[in-house]
Amino acid sequence: MTDRFAFALLKTDGGARLGQIATPRGRIRTPAFMPVGTAATVKALYTDQLEAAGTDIVLANTYHLMLRPGAERVARLGGLHRFMRWKRPIITDSGGFQVMSLARLRTISDTGVTFQSHIDGSTHTLTPERAVAIQCLLGSDIQMQLDECIALPASTAATHVAVERSLAWAARCKAEFARQLDSGAARPGQALFGIVQGGIDPSLRQQSADALVKLDLKGYAIGGLAVGETQQAMLDTLAFTLRWLPADKPRYLMGVGTPIDLIDSVERGADMFDCVMPTRSGRHGLAFTWTGKVNLKNARHAEDGAPLDPASPCPAAQEYSRAYLHHLVKAGELLGAMLLSWANVAFYQQLMEAMRAAIAEGRFAAWAAQTKARLGNTRNDP
Amino acid sequence: MTDRFAFALLKTDGGARLGQIATPRGRIRTPAFMPVGTAATVKALYTDQLEAAGTDIVLANTYHLMLRPGAERVARLGGLHRFMRWKRPIITDSGGFQVMSLARLRTISDTGVTFQSHIDGSTHTLTPERAVAIQCLLGSDIQMQLDECIALPASTAATHVAVERSLAWAARCKAEFARQLDSGAARPGQALFGIVQGGIDPSLRQQSADALVKLDLKGYAIGGLAVGETQQAMLDTLAFTLRWLPADKPRYLMGVGTPIDLIDSVERGADMFDCVMPTRSGRHGLAFTWTGKVNLKNARHAEDGAPLDPASPCPAAQEYSRAYLHHLVKAGELLGAMLLSWANVAFYQQLMEAMRAAIAEGRFAAWAAQTKARLGNTRNDP
Repeated sequence: MTDRFAFALLKTDGGARLGQIATPRGRIRTPAFMPVGTAATVKALYTDQLEAAGTDIVLANTYHLMLRPGAERVARLGGLHRFMRWKRPIITDSGGFQVMSLARLRTISDTGVTFQSHIDGSTHTLTPERAVAIQCLLGSDIQMQLDECIALPASTAATHVAVERSLAWAARCKAEFARQLDSGAARPGQALFGIVQGGIDPSLRQQSADALVKLDLKGYAIGGLAVGETQQAMLDTLAFTLRWLPADKPRYLMGVGTPIDLIDSVERGADMFDCVMPTRSGRHGLAFTWTGKVNLKNARHAEDGAPLDPASPCPAAQEYSRAYLHHLVKAGELLGAMLLSWANVAFYQQLMEAMRAAIAEGRFAAWAAQTKARLGNTRNDP
Repeated sequence: MTDRFAFALLKTDGGARLGQIATPRGRIRTPAFMPVGTAATVKALYTDQLEAAGTDIVLANTYHLMLRPGAERVARLGGLHRFMRWKRPIITDSGGFQVMSLARLRTISDTGVTFQSHIDGSTHTLTPERAVAIQCLLGSDIQMQLDECIALPASTAATHVAVERSLAWAARCKAEFARQLDSGAARPGQALFGIVQGGIDPSLRQQSADALVKLDLKGYAIGGLAVGETQQAMLDTLAFTLRWLPADKPRYLMGVGTPIDLIDSVERGADMFDCVMPTRSGRHGLAFTWTGKVNLKNARHAEDGAPLDPASPCPAAQEYSRAYLHHLVKAGELLGAMLLSWANVAFYQQLMEAMRAAIAEGRFAAWAAQTKARLGNTRNDP
């Protein structure tokens, strides 16, 4: 165990990168998939299952936790790790994205954003300083700067305003994080990441990346993607944005994605990912397997005694028949959501482990082509 | 392991009985609590958790399974044990109670009952013969006769008709079970239980019990209780009904009950119980603990860092704070239902284990008085 945050780039293979982030709460092997634990729980999963599946880090949402149960309350209860019974690293977003997608009556200015809770209508304000303070109260290992997320398509002018504002907020977050370190409310092993914005405009992305890199943060996220643009636009934007980010810092592609998205993004040099897809799909009867996506609602599974995925070591994918999973999903049984969420998170972690192994052995391109073909029917099970 | 079904009464202590049922799928220690797995899943629990909590047998509902996924389908998939991944004994009810409480457009005659599915409105018929055939297709270890359940309060005349009809159906179930054994569709280690009916009328209960005992079934249930009568009426009816049942057969009190109900019923000589209370309560934020019932929705738990129940070895009761459970329940998170259902089933099994130990050591009366006082605030946490 280390008392500081440190990224080591262990190997590259084409654009793909194998790395490791050392933190006081344990190492994060990259490329890493971070399951989403919005309200201090990765929905329908026990933390033991996350750990056994190979999860090094989970994400929690500042927006949800500041509203319920409240950041100060979590702090009084010993922090988010103890609260949710998860000892490994936690990353928290800053709340910016959720304020834009969930909250009502938003008012945004250079100071910050005021909004009404989607839970009870109460009014809250999130400034760069408050976003950092909340994340320190939660005790997350990786914090994200507050940024302004705008919906696509957006005009270049609007995107430019958001980029400038996000950059100003990044500097204020960095200053606040330093104050929190001085006061002892943050620890040296914690890290603050910046978020590159700029839509799909190369020059705005470059402007955003260059300015953030000058702030010398511990890592950089690519935000504002996976919000409705085409997969090709996302991958292109990722590729040119990564060129302006330093090789010796981790790169986190926010909110992505499908298994194929992950492979394509790792190929372009992204190191970290979060997405609700494995858990949300699991709650809706959809499973990710090594032979593609499976819709358990489909009647063709009703008498299929085979397991979900013989290629997955996860008990949820091995020890129950597709017929049983179909039955649970059709009957609306909680165990259906539990088993499929578990199987899906396990599949995502197996996918990351396979990517790390392929990079380590210098065969990522071949592995990626083969695996994408194998997963090709990902969207083919209606 | 045995190849037959056998009950051994090991010890009595006052009215309380310590026993063991041997079956080909493992032993059932009595007094036994049987968690309810209506649709081939004890809601929100993994079977490994049931087993670790000390569950010897689970109950599944014929009515639900005949409608979805269908008994023939379960049989084609290798039977209910394999389907739901549970190797220990399973008891199935006959569907009679659910037809009365859930189905629409019921028509009952001496032949059987015709009804419409509450799921899709399709029409189904349940006769004594079909009820046994379904339970053989499911492969349950203990089967229940089809009976007519009437709502309380009921006239003596109506109760009498239901008693007579249920007795005639018991004889037909026994004959059908023998045919299923002859044909190999049932195995010698499986058992058919009769159900004593008669409302709260002693003479009708005696008539029902006497006639059933003459059929020499493997065990006897007390049905038609826990349907709205007072607790005292239930206990009185239980007490006088048990007098007419043989000591060398297990006695199953259907649909009961609270922890206090279980203690009072064991004191009167009941051996087996099933109830949705631990799981249903768990899904509604209510927990059973060794210091009484706890409503996790209550705001007083919001900052309580203490575990749910230090006296319970269940991880769900030990490794999470009440504050976290409160948060999960308030946020409607699946993990809240999962943890509380788990903690509650574990508590029920601990209660049964404590009863068995007290009977074995001849201190049941003292244990019961002490424990009822300890659980006294069962209904006191609003």
